[in-house]
Amino acid sequence: MHAERAGYGLATDGGIVDLSARYEARWPTLQQVVDEHAFAALQENAARLSPDLSLEEIRFTIPSLLPEKIICVGVNFPDRNAEYKDGKEAPANPSLFPRFARSFVGHGQPLIRPPESEQLDYEGEIAIVIGKAGRRIAERDALDHIAALTLANEGSIRDWMRHAKFNVTQGKNFDASGAIGPWLVPYTDEAQIADIALTTRVNGEVRQSDRTSRMIFSFRKIINYVSTFTTLVPGDILITGTPTGAGARFDPPVWLKPGDIVEVEADGIGLLRNAIADEA
Amino acid sequence: MHAERAGYGLATDGGIVDLSARYEARWPTLQQVVDEHAFAALQENAARLSPDLSLEEIRFTIPSLLPEKIICVGVNFPDRNAEYKDGKEAPANPSLFPRFARSFVGHGQPLIRPPESEQLDYEGEIAIVIGKAGRRIAERDALDHIAALTLANEGSIRDWMRHAKFNVTQGKNFDASGAIGPWLVPYTDEAQIADIALTTRVNGEVRQSDRTSRMIFSFRKIINYVSTFTTLVPGDILITGTPTGAGARFDPPVWLKPGDIVEVEADGIGLLRNAIADEA
Repeated sequence: MHAERAGYGLATDGGIVDLSARYEARWPTLQQVVDEHAFAALQENAARLSPDLSLEEIRFTIPSLLPEKIICVGVNFPDRNAEYKDGKEAPANPSLFPRFARSFVGHGQPLIRPPESEQLDYEGEIAIVIGKAGRRIAERDALDHIAALTLANEGSIRDWMRHAKFNVTQGKNFDASGAIGPWLVPYTDEAQIADIALTTRVNGEVRQSDRTSRMIFSFRKIINYVSTFTTLVPGDILITGTPTGAGARFDPPVWLKPGDIVEVEADGIGLLRNAIADEA
Repeated sequence: MHAERAGYGLATDGGIVDLSARYEARWPTLQQVVDEHAFAALQENAARLSPDLSLEEIRFTIPSLLPEKIICVGVNFPDRNAEYKDGKEAPANPSLFPRFARSFVGHGQPLIRPPESEQLDYEGEIAIVIGKAGRRIAERDALDHIAALTLANEGSIRDWMRHAKFNVTQGKNFDASGAIGPWLVPYTDEAQIADIALTTRVNGEVRQSDRTSRMIFSFRKIINYVSTFTTLVPGDILITGTPTGAGARFDPPVWLKPGDIVEVEADGIGLLRNAIADEA
């Protein structure tokens, strides 16, 4: 978003190459780039261009503007199951819950603490953007369906996650309570995700730190399992679970408050940074 | 859907008045009719027109083609809480879970039993389509945000609802496992929904039967509560809960099988009928 015009570009060391200004006839939106697997073509075309904009000149939105679905995986790192202290074994299948796109903001935008609760919490995660449709995708083929990688802060309103008899829907879907971004890093091979560090910091202090090789349900398994019941389509976002160490797990719990800065970082995928603000 | 062309029309005793053929310049899709509160204007304009198509000539899709969100209420009729036999009191707030549009088919289309399970079950419900955006909508204003009423068969794959540690996501989101429709009945006043009969039949036998006046969480409360965390927008669908008597509650349970016919009916809202078929 630059001068209130939505667009997409290539991030380089020197700034942003404005691709939508050049290629909007061919690929009007980032969704079409995803639909047509055009990352490689765009990167090649853009390689010899000079940056048009500095990072300071743009405002980030969530990278895939209106995904058909965003599905999150719960309890996917060691010790997370034990954190629930319910005496139950780790389950055979991933816990899943949808989030609506409007529950996320872009990189650099404030996460909103609503007046209904003081229990805004962070969850740093890796998000995969689907590039190829499929149903009942075999694990061996699963990674071929990834278009790009990005980060998520799966911000949660903890007391509203247990408001009712079942499901975490409401506590996971407060408007603007989470973030996705900043980049769509084109997926090229498994080494990008197989064993990378995922870290969450609050005001510079490390709160969550683990490696993707320790995930209970692998990226392959998540794509296989989710596509068993629903057809995955280009633009869908799968958010793949958070390491131990959210604020809810401290004794007493430590909630996010206005002015706090949360950073989610993963090797090769970037750094997602958001401040906390009370709802205006 | 007629001759593979998507459209919308007015249902009359003599058949369907094809409105999209006449008004597509003004309201290209049914979503725009909802966005612009155009039901009354369309009904007035169409009142003197003759039907163009018989019901047999059209194929029903779900009425709002790509809603931003579909949110379902669980456990909202008396005895439903007791059916869970967990010794817990009825909760203070409604249980909520999202469904993706692709988990629903239109009236007359088969509900698909997937090869992964034999536990396909019905849940007859009243669905409301939002016509006016809002956040933190007061109960006294809530009904002003309804554009139209329709029916849902919130078909569920029971064993996949308890596949994981939390949430019913997967068992509620198998592709084409539920239905919405057939009509969008314009909402005019509270008497349309305050105390109407809601009935579900399987092969003609009544399985679920209750009245909306007995709902634990009223239509007003549902709109108020959901809009506390997420902004409701035109086209959003709220599916408001099912009476006791789903197949899972029989001893032993009675699941739907290919060839069964499920009918969901409510006073003044219509009759939603779907056969069951195994996945091809």
